[in-house]
Amino acid sequence: MADRPKRVEFREEGPREGFQIEKTVYPLDQRVQLVEALAETGLRHIQVASFVSPKHVPQMADSEALFAAIRRKPGVHYAGLWLNEQGFARARATPGVDLAGKISLYASDAFARKNNGCSAEEMAQRQRRWLELYAEAGLTPDFAIVMAAFGCNYEGDIPAERVVKLARYARDICAGRGERLRQFFLADTMGWANPEQVRRLVGEVRNAIPEVRIGLHLHDTRGLGAANVLAALEMGVDLFDSSVAGLGGCPFAAHGDAGAAGNICTEDMVFMCHEMGIETGIDLEALVECARLAERIIGRRLNGHVMHAGTLAKYRAGRKEAA
Amino acid sequence: MADRPKRVEFREEGPREGFQIEKTVYPLDQRVQLVEALAETGLRHIQVASFVSPKHVPQMADSEALFAAIRRKPGVHYAGLWLNEQGFARARATPGVDLAGKISLYASDAFARKNNGCSAEEMAQRQRRWLELYAEAGLTPDFAIVMAAFGCNYEGDIPAERVVKLARYARDICAGRGERLRQFFLADTMGWANPEQVRRLVGEVRNAIPEVRIGLHLHDTRGLGAANVLAALEMGVDLFDSSVAGLGGCPFAAHGDAGAAGNICTEDMVFMCHEMGIETGIDLEALVECARLAERIIGRRLNGHVMHAGTLAKYRAGRKEAA
Repeated sequence: MADRPKRVEFREEGPREGFQIEKTVYPLDQRVQLVEALAETGLRHIQVASFVSPKHVPQMADSEALFAAIRRKPGVHYAGLWLNEQGFARARATPGVDLAGKISLYASDAFARKNNGCSAEEMAQRQRRWLELYAEAGLTPDFAIVMAAFGCNYEGDIPAERVVKLARYARDICAGRGERLRQFFLADTMGWANPEQVRRLVGEVRNAIPEVRIGLHLHDTRGLGAANVLAALEMGVDLFDSSVAGLGGCPFAAHGDAGAAGNICTEDMVFMCHEMGIETGIDLEALVECARLAERIIGRRLNGHVMHAGTLAKYRAGRKEAA
Repeated sequence: MADRPKRVEFREEGPREGFQIEKTVYPLDQRVQLVEALAETGLRHIQVASFVSPKHVPQMADSEALFAAIRRKPGVHYAGLWLNEQGFARARATPGVDLAGKISLYASDAFARKNNGCSAEEMAQRQRRWLELYAEAGLTPDFAIVMAAFGCNYEGDIPAERVVKLARYARDICAGRGERLRQFFLADTMGWANPEQVRRLVGEVRNAIPEVRIGLHLHDTRGLGAANVLAALEMGVDLFDSSVAGLGGCPFAAHGDAGAAGNICTEDMVFMCHEMGIETGIDLEALVECARLAERIIGRRLNGHVMHAGTLAKYRAGRKEAA
């Protein structure tokens, strides 16, 4: 509890994670509307779309057009995702993409092959080249992310040592260029994490790279998302990826059921933080409206809770009026 | 963490909580099938049905027939719920109901009037009479429960002192008869609890009645159910009410959306405990099958996560075969 942060930052992933897992390709104007509404809530980092093969992820074929259509709000970082050099080149060539030097690593070799078409080791080696490309683009290393850090549907349990080794590797390849890695994300890509594991892995990674801010990318696949966030908060973690309405899931993660694959839900986690007295800088009521907008766009009931039950504000306001 | 229990007990509420909130009255044989399947999972306490007004809760009009139809498994407690003397008389007259001396209290006066048709104070006073009735039936006080202990859709925030006072009251009216209250449940009837509040309220109640085992009855209305369980585990709480597939919700709690009203989900919380190395005595795979059975009966997607994503066992088994 002593370690619990006073303020937590959420990086919104819904527009990318949410729409890539759906079978439907949703109209551009609806996705633009969602991104623009999210930017009005106080969220400072929104992952808009990915620059990946349109053959494998046809939902993201129009990423350039999506970025072009967004009316930008000053102070908001509009991110894109890439998994290889071609993707980065596309992102770099797309006006409106806020580039950030990102290092991508895999704790599971089998998942690296499914998601990236190369071994985990090859992916790690490629990151040296990525750092060169980033430098050419005037970027410094912003963050690293280790996918399948908590377990893998293809490989099973993932030893913590493997993740710790990747953490040191990410830090060291930056240091080798005289640069400092700012953030290190542990991604529970397939929903294997439990609170005890979160606590232990965050602790071990922090011991290995104490100078790097730790972030978590969590999925609520097996219902432990909120508990995993709580465990992380108590370890002092103040940086989370999440998706409005609990949208999301990787199309290549072999989730049992796409509806169960979603990321932790931004507005539910913001609600938890606010109720616990932790600041987020986010207007919760506005964010709940974004979740309802996402539900109208997707056209089926989404996983978020607060969006359906409502926040506690109206009940508290009612009491004040009555008092 | 030092306080975390080695073993946790779940009291299954799905058959009662789950079916009372649905608009449909489901066929008796399907509800019997669910109760019988739950009894095979290792669950030792199953709340089968309530003995309340069939006018207000028509789904529970056939509680006697339900109890009569169940093939009992030795060692399992088949509980019924009552909210007044007539209800207890019905339960007592029904073969197959495992009676337990239960004290019912309200932290919210407004909710007492909605749910019980009397004030919270009147309800508290009635408990003295209930204890007499229990003694006549040969029962000792088994547990007390305080409804709306964490907040109320009618009254707003609930002061902790009010709950602590009710805890002392429950203990003292038992002690006044030379009896010992065994368990004290805090019920988050309307999904207001957050992990920090769970920690504080459990701590305050334990300080007030250290000799009584504390249980929690939680709802996942706003997505914090798993986090609230984790906070409670870390306070040493080892007793939870929960519902298979996350069924449930009180019909008089003014939930924004019935689908969001569900209890914490038994199999998701059993999964969390097992992943954290905490025993439950429950066969998780069998319980997941019960959740899927409940979903087939109800006929729409239910809130449980593990029931849709599957446990991690098959992935781990696959790795062992491959190794």
